Amino acid sequence: MSPSWQDLAADKKQRQAACIPKEWVITPPADTVLDVRTIPDECGLLTPKEVEITNTTDVQNILNNLATGKWSSLETTLAFYKRAIIAQQLVNCLTEIFIERALARAKELDEQLKATGKVAGPLHGLPVSLKDQLSMRGLETTMGWVSWIGKFSEHDAVVVQIIYDAGAVPFVRTNIPQTLMWAESYNMVFGRTLNPANRKLTSGGSSGGEGALIGMRGSPLGVGSDIGGSIRIPSGYNGLYGLRPSYHRVPYAGATNSLLGQDSIPSVLGPLSNSMSGIKVFMQAISAYKPWTKDPLARYAPWDASRYALAEHGGGKRLCFAIMWTDGMTTPHPPVTRALEMTKRALVTAGHKVIDWKPYRHKEICDTVYDVWTAASKDDYASVASMSGEPVLNTMEMEAEHGAPNSFLPAQDNVTAHQLWQFHKTKAALRQEYLDYWNSTSTMTGSGRPVDAIICPVSPYGGAPPHGHSRIVDYTAVWNGLDYATCVFPVTRVNATLDAKKPSHQFLNPRDKAHYEMWDLQTFWNAPIGLQLVGRCQEEEAVIAMTEIVDVALKKWNPSKL
Amino acid sequence: MSPSWQDLAADKKQRQAACIPKEWVITPPADTVLDVRTIPDECGLLTPKEVEITNTTDVQNILNNLATGKWSSLETTLAFYKRAIIAQQLVNCLTEIFIERALARAKELDEQLKATGKVAGPLHGLPVSLKDQLSMRGLETTMGWVSWIGKFSEHDAVVVQIIYDAGAVPFVRTNIPQTLMWAESYNMVFGRTLNPANRKLTSGGSSGGEGALIGMRGSPLGVGSDIGGSIRIPSGYNGLYGLRPSYHRVPYAGATNSLLGQDSIPSVLGPLSNSMSGIKVFMQAISAYKPWTKDPLARYAPWDASRYALAEHGGGKRLCFAIMWTDGMTTPHPPVTRALEMTKRALVTAGHKVIDWKPYRHKEICDTVYDVWTAASKDDYASVASMSGEPVLNTMEMEAEHGAPNSFLPAQDNVTAHQLWQFHKTKAALRQEYLDYWNSTSTMTGSGRPVDAIICPVSPYGGAPPHGHSRIVDYTAVWNGLDYATCVFPVTRVNATLDAKKPSHQFLNPRDKAHYEMWDLQTFWNAPIGLQLVGRCQEEEAVIAMTEIVDVALKKWNPSKL
Repeated sequence: MSPSWQDLAADKKQRQAACIPKEWVITPPADTVLDVRTIPDECGLLTPKEVEITNTTDVQNILNNLATGKWSSLETTLAFYKRAIIAQQLVNCLTEIFIERALARAKELDEQLKATGKVAGPLHGLPVSLKDQLSMRGLETTMGWVSWIGKFSEHDAVVVQIIYDAGAVPFVRTNIPQTLMWAESYNMVFGRTLNPANRKLTSGGSSGGEGALIGMRGSPLGVGSDIGGSIRIPSGYNGLYGLRPSYHRVPYAGATNSLLGQDSIPSVLGPLSNSMSGIKVFMQAISAYKPWTKDPLARYAPWDASRYALAEHGGGKRLCFAIMWTDGMTTPHPPVTRALEMTKRALVTAGHKVIDWKPYRHKEICDTVYDVWTAASKDDYASVASMSGEPVLNTMEMEAEHGAPNSFLPAQDNVTAHQLWQFHKTKAALRQEYLDYWNSTSTMTGSGRPVDAIICPVSPYGGAPPHGHSRIVDYTAVWNGLDYATCVFPVTRVNATLDAKKPSHQFLNPRDKAHYEMWDLQTFWNAPIGLQLVGRCQEEEAVIAMTEIVDVALKKWNPSKL
Repeated sequence: MSPSWQDLAADKKQRQAACIPKEWVITPPADTVLDVRTIPDECGLLTPKEVEITNTTDVQNILNNLATGKWSSLETTLAFYKRAIIAQQLVNCLTEIFIERALARAKELDEQLKATGKVAGPLHGLPVSLKDQLSMRGLETTMGWVSWIGKFSEHDAVVVQIIYDAGAVPFVRTNIPQTLMWAESYNMVFGRTLNPANRKLTSGGSSGGEGALIGMRGSPLGVGSDIGGSIRIPSGYNGLYGLRPSYHRVPYAGATNSLLGQDSIPSVLGPLSNSMSGIKVFMQAISAYKPWTKDPLARYAPWDASRYALAEHGGGKRLCFAIMWTDGMTTPHPPVTRALEMTKRALVTAGHKVIDWKPYRHKEICDTVYDVWTAASKDDYASVASMSGEPVLNTMEMEAEHGAPNSFLPAQDNVTAHQLWQFHKTKAALRQEYLDYWNSTSTMTGSGRPVDAIICPVSPYGGAPPHGHSRIVDYTAVWNGLDYATCVFPVTRVNATLDAKKPSHQFLNPRDKAHYEMWDLQTFWNAPIGLQLVGRCQEEEAVIAMTEIVDVALKKWNPSKL
């Protein structure tokens, strides 16, 4: 008799636990300890130098120390590995653990640097974490499916090849939700990832393992994927920086995915980090290795210094930002609105112009995105789950047995190819309208240019919601439908004084009312709040440069509030 | 009672004929006159200067004469218009005719140049012909559908806007097949376009009106579209140059199309011309007007001088070309093989290396392309045809009533969205395999680089086949599936001495046998023969530069045979 899916999952989880050296096992804090982010610094497992290394959030600084030999790759990788394993015990963020392999690679890089005096590449010696989709030769790629346990990859995904070529050290893989199509991270193989700032909250998803791990400073740089917010939601929920490039900038070839063949709104890969320098060095490094010669779908796009210098945005001197306070469907919770206000003041103080952005047909755009995703998602999930008999989840709530509602997207049945083409047609028309709409703002900016970038919430939630309740992805998914390059930056944290419940407003719809009623300072205690900077299609360099400008403005304006 | 579709078509055709000034009507030659290309020079309607202007095939020369004022735009546009109207009477290549509007635009440009001393843009004063899909404000866009008669466009397609901005003079629109999905040009509104070199042969399709018009030298530069060969087949059949750029380089927004919403193998726009300079100036001009700021799907791709200088191909000094003699499905007719041999010798003489290209899974790639196209094509066509009651054609043969077989692609029924995603998935896998295969050729070239470009037939036919028989598009469609940038160049013409039927070979399949038996010197009399140069995805500049190299090599090597 072949083993049950439960047995297979338990065996995999057991094999995972066995990868953790006994001496790295810590005494767990009580479940009532919600914010676990300082435990790595305090638990005694890390040496003072390891504490220093892992608290160095500026990735360029880490790279400089590696390149000069001040820090070896071995000690840097070991430091982050130990911290990642601590994180794993606190927030359950990892999938594949391969310590020996990573340390051997780091050692090899150290020897190479010593022998040649030259770095192996722009990411020399840097540990990099990878979302579980990013297949690595010789490791399992389960993507959270019991059905895929035992599926060992024969090849590195193209982006992994490039990360190796660039001199980095892939060192852990990270957790995701079953199907990837959730804004949380829970599956039948690895279980649930928690938010390090408040373990009662979700770390987001689908790159939620990355979010939690980097939130714990267990990795300096991670690679996630984003089809509707899957990089940006975990970045926002964990107080990180995270970039969603436009389609096909970062090579996806060789990675595993769900909804394979759905190529109208493709998922994209992108970086998450505790610093903008992490975002930038990743994008520069990937571009330098000509992904378009390795991935047939990758866009030809060398790193463009002129676009990074904001040549198309007046050199970045006096930018015009537009703040989208609401998408017209869900009024954000108080701390989100406060974060937008902070950002507005910081930008005005820094000499930029800030106007309001009126959302344009966001509901239609989001509906079309969901129509495309769900046109055949049910068949797609069933075809995988049926191999092992594991259930396809229809909720991510803790107590699913209490009849929790379908949390996210209902699937459609029996959509024809012709109907799918009509969704695509609608999407193309909406993209044209939105482009024309954005171009029309050139009369309002004073610069003669259209608005340089939109600043908007990552989600309407006042930070990460409790497990099972991260359901609204409209604020991120709309930009996937439009394919705008978008970067998340951290702004603030829920504040008991400043974020009290506001008087009831005129509700936009029943969901808006439920969302308003959900707000509760106690529930969202300590949650980080990030925002999105939304640029135009394919302008990743400009989006990075403008997010740096916003980030600096925020830090200069009133650091005490950040 | 509303008029029948036949009445609507007859009325439209009558309105079209009424656009032709009486004094431009020529005495038609007998139907037995097959090659009508010199009639414009001889019929007496063109002045000697108009003969000189319209026989100037190098578009850069025309532009120079326009920029210096040697030729006015008015006289140039008038010359090409007269020649286009002669062509219309001989090969039926036009759809929309708007003489006054074009001449007024030309006059305006002349006045502007006189007043300012400056050209309006890089295409100043140049008449440009447009495939019927390319909507222009105030004109009907029927695309050959009776159902769309009376559909007047409110906007110029983005590419038309750019052509205007660049200073050109859109002056005629050109014929296409019903549905666009044929390699010929016949529809219920405008009828059939003939091949100017032999009117018993097809001009190809779907940009067959462009092919015939430019083959008559009735336009110096035309814009067509290509989803499976629709630019390249008419270019090949008419002895022209024609570029299929990769997806989304030339903006498609605002143009009409069939299979709307089918965005996995998108149709692309591109130029056709009697010179490579026409191809190059068009691509440079379009790129200069930043289509990605106007079309939400357009790729960010300024004209790249470094790629045009073949920086990625060793500066173009000693290239390695690979000749694909057959695709393994259909053995080309004798003149095609001879054209490949001529090109090989010319390139070797010019100092380049030439090796053989073994086709890789071309059948699987083509089958997948056809699976995607036809997943919902039947519903798409029916939804348009049902508006007027016109029939959806299933053959392009002259005598359809004799029970001609379905000539092209059978439609699929009831394809689901999930099945369509599986086709997309197969296509992505095949693209990866082909890329890896091409990369693997770096061991064979002697340059350390993979093969610089493939040279292969445009189609297996020994030139344009008789009407109704242009059925095999595998040699072009494979590159649409792979999205390789591809340029057609003319090589030779069917020759009674050199192209005699060869001894029977071992047939690859029944279709190959029928194709062999089809070859007949009499039938294909005088047909031009072109070839394709196939580059890699998104490298339009390099493909243009390499095609120029091949073109020069052919002209230098043995001009008497060309």
